[in-house]
Amino acid sequence: MSVTVVGSIAFDAVKTPWGQRDRLLGGSAVHFALSASFLADVRVVGPVGDDFGEAEYDVLRARGVNVDDIEHVQGGKTFFWSGEYEYDLNTRHTHDTQLNVFADFAPKLSDASKTADVVFLANIQPDLQREVREQCAGARVVGLDSMNLWIETARDSLVRTIEGVDVLVVNDAELRQLTEKPNLLQAAREVMDWGPTAVVVKQGEFGASLYSGDRFFSLPAYPLESVLDPTGAGDSFAGGLFGYIAAHPDEGLDEELLRRAMAYGTALASFNVEEFGTERVQRLTADEVRERVGALHACTSWVDVPLEQRA
Amino acid sequence: MSVTVVGSIAFDAVKTPWGQRDRLLGGSAVHFALSASFLADVRVVGPVGDDFGEAEYDVLRARGVNVDDIEHVQGGKTFFWSGEYEYDLNTRHTHDTQLNVFADFAPKLSDASKTADVVFLANIQPDLQREVREQCAGARVVGLDSMNLWIETARDSLVRTIEGVDVLVVNDAELRQLTEKPNLLQAAREVMDWGPTAVVVKQGEFGASLYSGDRFFSLPAYPLESVLDPTGAGDSFAGGLFGYIAAHPDEGLDEELLRRAMAYGTALASFNVEEFGTERVQRLTADEVRERVGALHACTSWVDVPLEQRA
Repeated sequence: MSVTVVGSIAFDAVKTPWGQRDRLLGGSAVHFALSASFLADVRVVGPVGDDFGEAEYDVLRARGVNVDDIEHVQGGKTFFWSGEYEYDLNTRHTHDTQLNVFADFAPKLSDASKTADVVFLANIQPDLQREVREQCAGARVVGLDSMNLWIETARDSLVRTIEGVDVLVVNDAELRQLTEKPNLLQAAREVMDWGPTAVVVKQGEFGASLYSGDRFFSLPAYPLESVLDPTGAGDSFAGGLFGYIAAHPDEGLDEELLRRAMAYGTALASFNVEEFGTERVQRLTADEVRERVGALHACTSWVDVPLEQRA
Repeated sequence: MSVTVVGSIAFDAVKTPWGQRDRLLGGSAVHFALSASFLADVRVVGPVGDDFGEAEYDVLRARGVNVDDIEHVQGGKTFFWSGEYEYDLNTRHTHDTQLNVFADFAPKLSDASKTADVVFLANIQPDLQREVREQCAGARVVGLDSMNLWIETARDSLVRTIEGVDVLVVNDAELRQLTEKPNLLQAAREVMDWGPTAVVVKQGEFGASLYSGDRFFSLPAYPLESVLDPTGAGDSFAGGLFGYIAAHPDEGLDEELLRRAMAYGTALASFNVEEFGTERVQRLTADEVRERVGALHACTSWVDVPLEQRA
């Protein structure tokens, strides 16, 4: 089955303690799409400018991603982000954001994109996310990401948008800020009261947690001795998560399915951060993904042996 | 089998967004001992002053903890700590630390304490920890905690002390600071090169991770809708971890045993934070511990189903 992602397509300039790159293919929709492509048919919706050429399209096409709904704005320039990570990679500083063609982006979905089984609304202005959601009225599962900027400047719109989706995917700080609840379990329950079936909390180097109904599940990040560039980790994670959901159209948002989807997200995110931008994922094979999911399972399994109790 | 813990015995004044207490029984050795008492025979070594009375001894005795090696310093006052937690409980500010009898503490272990199967060196000055370690030459497993103060003021001594123990238990920031490595996997491997068999990293609300040989394991914190006071969570965690190891003398530091020990530590820490100080753990039953370990297993288990691969 297929998944449509609506979000940014970008060039990134990234500096980390381990190196830097001046012009990387990036953007939430790109990282999501490459990751999801290991699991499902993917369509990308987002704007690019004249500087986005065949080489960039080919990165997506090589993974079988459908690029028909990438909107080429004549005379425009592609969204550009420049940032730098601190020593432990947990803190990021943005140096420059040039919206360019993204400033006037009004998502136009083809019928094929509208009728996708699964839709992911990557982090864009919440009014636009809601418009897309309304265009995809028949989608079985809709996921949504957001960020502090929209919580601070468009909270009411964001909440209304969240009310109409199935799965919210945000990081722990965003979930606290959004709900004004410091306790993540309380915060997730509040969001589920608004409408979503599940809340997925991204916790950076500490993995991700899933709140769904009365249940809780958590996975660590896959342990890596070398992380070169965390940019796009969250979108790669979401790509694996929703790609896996799209690959299992008969299972709804079953808890067991969501847990396995979290594992695929975690595995794909771990490859994303091994090198800069999309460098590692471009070379990635399905066998490697499969193997890493197995390795992740080995990192999280334990046997609950009943203990002779003391008083 | 038995476990000896050497560390602080304290009165704490704690303020959190959910309330405050002026005088709580606390200290690393107390939290550790109460927690470990659900799994093993426990002996506490540490100093107290005249203000430490029968009511406090009784809290420990009620859980079967042996208090013979608690040193009563005539005319002295018990260690006192006062602090406050911010909104999300992740940031703590110390208002006051009065070492009192702890300032001149020189651990004196009885033969029974020295010959314990498992010894935990809670966070005290590393020279003292090493002296205790040398007194317990026959211990099967020795664990150690520390803090930023000793990393900054006595790093060489601390490293020498770590060289002589089996399991280091620190938080993620301390592990980075200690090794000057931002990557936790690299940092844990460095510590294992010094001597320890395993490194356990406490990650606060994000649980704890175990590095042991080439293997990695991680558990989330047990999800709680209400956390009243995080004080002592790390020591309760260590108490469950080493209490479980002490309860299984024939299994060495086997990976599967360590994983189950992590689960007991996680369960016990989760009770500790539900109320102030030792309030919750004083009422805790072995059945509740057992039940929570099972609930934690349900929060972490998933089935790795092979997926029909795409290209």
